[in-house]
Amino acid sequence: MHESDTLPVIAVIGGTGALGNALAARWARAGYTVVIGSRSEAKAVAAAERLREAGAAASVRGAVNRAAAELADVIVVTVPFASHAEILADIRPAVAGKIVVDTTVPLVPPKVGTVQLPSGGSAALEAQGVLGDNVTVASAFHNVAAHKLGGGDRVDCDVLVCGDSRRARETGIALAEAAGLRGLHAGPLANSVAPEALTSVLIQINRRYKVDGAGIRITGDVIDPHAGS
Amino acid sequence: MHESDTLPVIAVIGGTGALGNALAARWARAGYTVVIGSRSEAKAVAAAERLREAGAAASVRGAVNRAAAELADVIVVTVPFASHAEILADIRPAVAGKIVVDTTVPLVPPKVGTVQLPSGGSAALEAQGVLGDNVTVASAFHNVAAHKLGGGDRVDCDVLVCGDSRRARETGIALAEAAGLRGLHAGPLANSVAPEALTSVLIQINRRYKVDGAGIRITGDVIDPHAGS
Repeated sequence: MHESDTLPVIAVIGGTGALGNALAARWARAGYTVVIGSRSEAKAVAAAERLREAGAAASVRGAVNRAAAELADVIVVTVPFASHAEILADIRPAVAGKIVVDTTVPLVPPKVGTVQLPSGGSAALEAQGVLGDNVTVASAFHNVAAHKLGGGDRVDCDVLVCGDSRRARETGIALAEAAGLRGLHAGPLANSVAPEALTSVLIQINRRYKVDGAGIRITGDVIDPHAGS
Repeated sequence: MHESDTLPVIAVIGGTGALGNALAARWARAGYTVVIGSRSEAKAVAAAERLREAGAAASVRGAVNRAAAELADVIVVTVPFASHAEILADIRPAVAGKIVVDTTVPLVPPKVGTVQLPSGGSAALEAQGVLGDNVTVASAFHNVAAHKLGGGDRVDCDVLVCGDSRRARETGIALAEAAGLRGLHAGPLANSVAPEALTSVLIQINRRYKVDGAGIRITGDVIDPHAGS
């Protein structure tokens, strides 16, 4: 559909982790230019090298998180909640005027199967708070099992995309589709608490029913009347 | 599986509303004795009469909410969030030592498509707070479209059941199954914020994608290793 040179450059902050790495690999295969960010430049460069060796078609490189954000049009945040505020503050100077897609789930070990919402209401709302009003935040990819995404198979999970800006939600949906998933408009950023909290429910279901990576599907006849050709 | 006389008697508080009435009808058809509760005894009695005329096999009667709760073993709360605390306080003397299954979603009109969590964190946690520690609270049925449940067809939606007590969750799951739905253990009552918030997401999806009652399915190979015969 798109020419590769019209696709945005994506930075994956925390892209050496399981979720970030899996997303970076899928986006690179879909033709995006991807910059893997890490606190460690060496780790980022090594992760990018592994993706190139694995045959990612497009350009993949590594950089420290803030440099990765500087190089990108869209910044995807895939970091543990314990590092969330700190890493957002670190990249803030590099994301002004850009779209940030936050995947963070506010899990608090050891009780990751129990919803423990942060004081800001949700990780996404806290991200908007740290980054400020000149950054457009969406949230997505909370409910996808990283190890499933890391395989090449189809993943049976929808991606709920929240954001106050339609453009930011559409960016998140395009990234979901590029990763082989269905993305859905899920409402304003305030709604991000739903998919964020749902992850603890999925953890409970994985344990109780011995599921290898439960996910969610929205049922009903979901066809986007606004989707163009 | 069960003899009818071993099934608990169910009170449906707010059972003249769309969700409560649909659940009452399904449970009556499944062989449960059901007491429809309402603020108005006349409306409750009339709703019960309509269910009997529609051929509900088991005993269905109507009563004011507190009397309905007194007559029942399991009390299901299906009331608008605006009346939630008040009606819970009203039935409190009648539910001590019993199981209360709360279906309430904390929607705040007019922005029902935006998650607006109550100060107590969720409707379910607020219910436990009002009812006190000698009442066992579960939450369930947040994501099922009432008009779909009101029809006789199979409804394509899972029921996430939260509760700190396994017995309470199992009661909620049994009620889901009696209504023709799959119920799933979704963790402690603190997790109820996930299905409660998800309802606003489903409302957004209904609007955006012109869906007639979106629901959710948990994906993955969900088989209960604890289910025995």
